[in-house]
Amino acid sequence: MTERAFQEQYAERYSYCYGCGRLNEQGLHVKSRWEGEESVCIFEPAPYHIAFPGFVYGGLIASIIDCHSTGTAAAAAARAEGREIGAEPAIRFVTASLHVDYLKPTPMGTPLELRSTIREVRGRRTVVETFLFAGGERCVRGELVAVRIPETMEPA
Amino acid sequence: MTERAFQEQYAERYSYCYGCGRLNEQGLHVKSRWEGEESVCIFEPAPYHIAFPGFVYGGLIASIIDCHSTGTAAAAAARAEGREIGAEPAIRFVTASLHVDYLKPTPMGTPLELRSTIREVRGRRTVVETFLFAGGERCVRGELVAVRIPETMEPA
Repeated sequence: MTERAFQEQYAERYSYCYGCGRLNEQGLHVKSRWEGEESVCIFEPAPYHIAFPGFVYGGLIASIIDCHSTGTAAAAAARAEGREIGAEPAIRFVTASLHVDYLKPTPMGTPLELRSTIREVRGRRTVVETFLFAGGERCVRGELVAVRIPETMEPA
Repeated sequence: MTERAFQEQYAERYSYCYGCGRLNEQGLHVKSRWEGEESVCIFEPAPYHIAFPGFVYGGLIASIIDCHSTGTAAAAAARAEGREIGAEPAIRFVTASLHVDYLKPTPMGTPLELRSTIREVRGRRTVVETFLFAGGERCVRGELVAVRIPETMEPA
């Protein structure tokens, strides 16, 4: 996993996201890469990202699933079109809906591993399923519906 | 809305949550109060809580819906039992699942208003529906299933 992360390839105007933007200094800097047909993100929560002492805050988990999934949707679209994620016109997705099942409490003190697969691509919509593992245990399942941004709605 | 927020009444051991804990110095400090049958949270995103310039980050929105909803579930249970939220044994809920529909982009530059209602209480499970408004526009819908923490699973 030495190639540049999906998010490191985004065009500058898409790089201010609090969750994954490389240019957002206060942000979480989620980074995702392919491992075969799965996309993988390793994330280390800060000590204060807790729900209770010892357990990761669920809102943080929702956040990293969000950015990892929309990035995966973009990377899959780029791959299907045989071009780079950051090539123009930009391929970027926004979140239409996010569903998170907290299967068990997620412990602090170990990096979180998110593994995602594309479940469906239909027109501009892509469905991404994610499992979050902590210390090898599957703690969370996420399902995100991403919608490709029409070029006419792009930020300046 | 001058009475103490739900989260300001939580027992000390429940007050370290990144989303709503009064003792988490880096946290978001979500605060919720009743307005009749609805619970209301007013939240001002920080300038860096963006997805793109001008629009609020969806992961932040999921986070504040999470804490506002579990707090609402606790407050409703306290009200039903005729006692204080912070009274012992503590009434606290964790998130079993969170669903968020991003109906339209949420603009920055205006306080966010979350309004929630209890949709179902069955045994230890409470379903909370939330709408997020920005500048009077309904931008997001959330549905959260909260589960009451058994006393045997309480953090120390």
